[in-house]
Amino acid sequence: MIPEVLIARFAATATPPHDAMSIIRLALFDWAVCAIAGRDEPIARILRDLAEAEGAVGDRLPPARAALINGATSHALDYDDTHFAHIGHTSVAVMPAVLALSQGRTLDEVLQAALIGSEVAVRVGLWLGRDHYQIGFHQTATAGAFGAAMAASRLLGLTQPQMIAALGLVSTKAAGLKSQFGTMGKPLNAGLAAETGVLAAQWAAGGMTSADAGLGGALGFGATHHGAGDMAGFRRMGDDWLMRDVSHKFHACCHGLHATLEALKGLNGEVAELTITTHPRWMSVCNILTPRSGLECKFSYRMVTAMHLSGISTAAIDSYSDQAATDPALADIRARVHVHEDAALTEMQAQIDVTYDDGRKAELFHDLNAPLDPATRHDRLMQKARAVVGGAMAEDLWGAVGADDTRALARLIG
Amino acid sequence: MIPEVLIARFAATATPPHDAMSIIRLALFDWAVCAIAGRDEPIARILRDLAEAEGAVGDRLPPARAALINGATSHALDYDDTHFAHIGHTSVAVMPAVLALSQGRTLDEVLQAALIGSEVAVRVGLWLGRDHYQIGFHQTATAGAFGAAMAASRLLGLTQPQMIAALGLVSTKAAGLKSQFGTMGKPLNAGLAAETGVLAAQWAAGGMTSADAGLGGALGFGATHHGAGDMAGFRRMGDDWLMRDVSHKFHACCHGLHATLEALKGLNGEVAELTITTHPRWMSVCNILTPRSGLECKFSYRMVTAMHLSGISTAAIDSYSDQAATDPALADIRARVHVHEDAALTEMQAQIDVTYDDGRKAELFHDLNAPLDPATRHDRLMQKARAVVGGAMAEDLWGAVGADDTRALARLIG
Repeated sequence: MIPEVLIARFAATATPPHDAMSIIRLALFDWAVCAIAGRDEPIARILRDLAEAEGAVGDRLPPARAALINGATSHALDYDDTHFAHIGHTSVAVMPAVLALSQGRTLDEVLQAALIGSEVAVRVGLWLGRDHYQIGFHQTATAGAFGAAMAASRLLGLTQPQMIAALGLVSTKAAGLKSQFGTMGKPLNAGLAAETGVLAAQWAAGGMTSADAGLGGALGFGATHHGAGDMAGFRRMGDDWLMRDVSHKFHACCHGLHATLEALKGLNGEVAELTITTHPRWMSVCNILTPRSGLECKFSYRMVTAMHLSGISTAAIDSYSDQAATDPALADIRARVHVHEDAALTEMQAQIDVTYDDGRKAELFHDLNAPLDPATRHDRLMQKARAVVGGAMAEDLWGAVGADDTRALARLIG
Repeated sequence: MIPEVLIARFAATATPPHDAMSIIRLALFDWAVCAIAGRDEPIARILRDLAEAEGAVGDRLPPARAALINGATSHALDYDDTHFAHIGHTSVAVMPAVLALSQGRTLDEVLQAALIGSEVAVRVGLWLGRDHYQIGFHQTATAGAFGAAMAASRLLGLTQPQMIAALGLVSTKAAGLKSQFGTMGKPLNAGLAAETGVLAAQWAAGGMTSADAGLGGALGFGATHHGAGDMAGFRRMGDDWLMRDVSHKFHACCHGLHATLEALKGLNGEVAELTITTHPRWMSVCNILTPRSGLECKFSYRMVTAMHLSGISTAAIDSYSDQAATDPALADIRARVHVHEDAALTEMQAQIDVTYDDGRKAELFHDLNAPLDPATRHDRLMQKARAVVGGAMAEDLWGAVGADDTRALARLIG
């Protein structure tokens, strides 16, 4: 059995449940916040400047080019959502693709397509498996392109055979390497996934043919890209919706710090000393003891803890400044924060042992995998939006994702 | 040592020798013939229709889109050139990229860039090696994208660090699978290579950053795409020019038939019976004994031999018709043609044992690897051009590749 048929059938016929639709609406909102926040990043400017130099701006941008620019822009700050089941950022690939093709569609149709495409991205990512990621492929770009293509195909109303052709075309075009991390190549990968999704759907709609088993067949994408090929995830498509578990970032720093920052919310007193225990994997990722720049602050347990204890917003992008890195008051607090590793914790968990000024001791704990109820998720995302794009824009964006169509959203994204 | 530095230095500084420039001018001519001949193929129409629907046609096409369309169009008939050292079609990736960026450049600059880019494509292909191809990657698309990027980068005058960034960007974008063969995905792959080359050069020129060792480093393109990583070929860049050995197709059929068709030119009398001996590899590729359609004629030793003996042009695309497949006269001749395999021959060689009507016997032989002198190559390409696009267009194209710039060529390609 190859996955193409199952994916196309799901993408063409699935009817998403109400609760998953609520989550994808929040995901669209958060994605839009990230897209606006990333607007002045270098990758965004370079891509926009090129489009302008070629005479194609705003409404005159071909959908695929718009998807590329919005995908890269929204991933530029790495503040967008993640799905940990397959380690990929789903919205930066899928949302730009559906937004680029949303003219004349209702917002509900757009959200359905986005949800279905996101679900496909996660399932393809699970099917490709951990080896695919470990060997060097960036799932956001690879699995993401298949998801973006199914989202675009659903929105354009492709038939199942056309969707299979679209999957074949993605199979020969999808790409993206993790070795780009730390360069503009990382956000570019997200943009390329969104662009590939739009193009594959447009090409298939226009009658382009492709390998019937381009993804799952012999010499297909999976076979050539170290895919494991576990079909189990595809068989459950439509029965459960993995996008319910999408993770949103509420802090503008490395995801490895988030469980700690969530656990810190349990503090109730002045802190004398504090020990963070976390999974060993993060030691080489985000345990810079004495950060020297704003960027390094984003990868420092001690620093983000000191920021939290000083009442500095860890959600606001501007908080992670060179000035903060060298602030003596923050350095004093940092000195009272210790970091331990313990393989008994999962990568998503953090434990904090705190001694308060008054001599009390307490143990705090947070697991990022713990479900977040929709109301709390909404509130947290609104707080994040206000911190990142300001209160007025946050309200406008929330209004736009509740409108009848995407015109208001498209105007705000620009 | 990673290849990036060597490639960028070569692309930025190499001065091609005169004889290699003559070859690349012929390659540009032949590529243009293929691009015009492919114009009405479905893949070409689908891509043009999409561009038109999006309001971007002719002069208003962004260069990357023009490169995509021209790359796919020129490979649609599979009549374009091949470099057998790395098994890739070089011109369909490189020529559309330089043509798309040729405004304001002299033809000499364009040809230098094309030659240098083609040379890079072949060297990257050799560095990736046979495993890369065997596992399922289409070298025309993968190695071709690196060549197209260096051609575009040379033409845009990028610095060596910018060229290294361009190589990094290609590393995270290049893709293309052999499992697309037999579908429109195959010519699409060529177009994607050309498009990737243009975009990577434009992006790097605009300041986009990428992994410094995106091609040759840990988790780079080579490591993730089953590359062998033999550096020997890169070290000889600039000393010898492998593009001197590019192969042009003079017959509009499977390359496995070409040595036979060349050997048949040695006939001098009416043929009673004839036995072709060829490498075993071709038995499953192009030995259809009784073709039923024009397409199957392109994969039949017996059929193309019958066509040659009947004076039907094997260079003209129209010769391979459904009507020819069922023609009783051709079937009669076919019955006197036999095909044998012999592993002692190379894949590029064919031997023919002929018995003439008058009882004479003779042995004919051809090796496609035998060097072709430039004058003969020119004459053969002109004959091909006349058979494929007609005498007037052939003359116009030949004039256009001898002009001061590419304006005439761009007008003819459309």
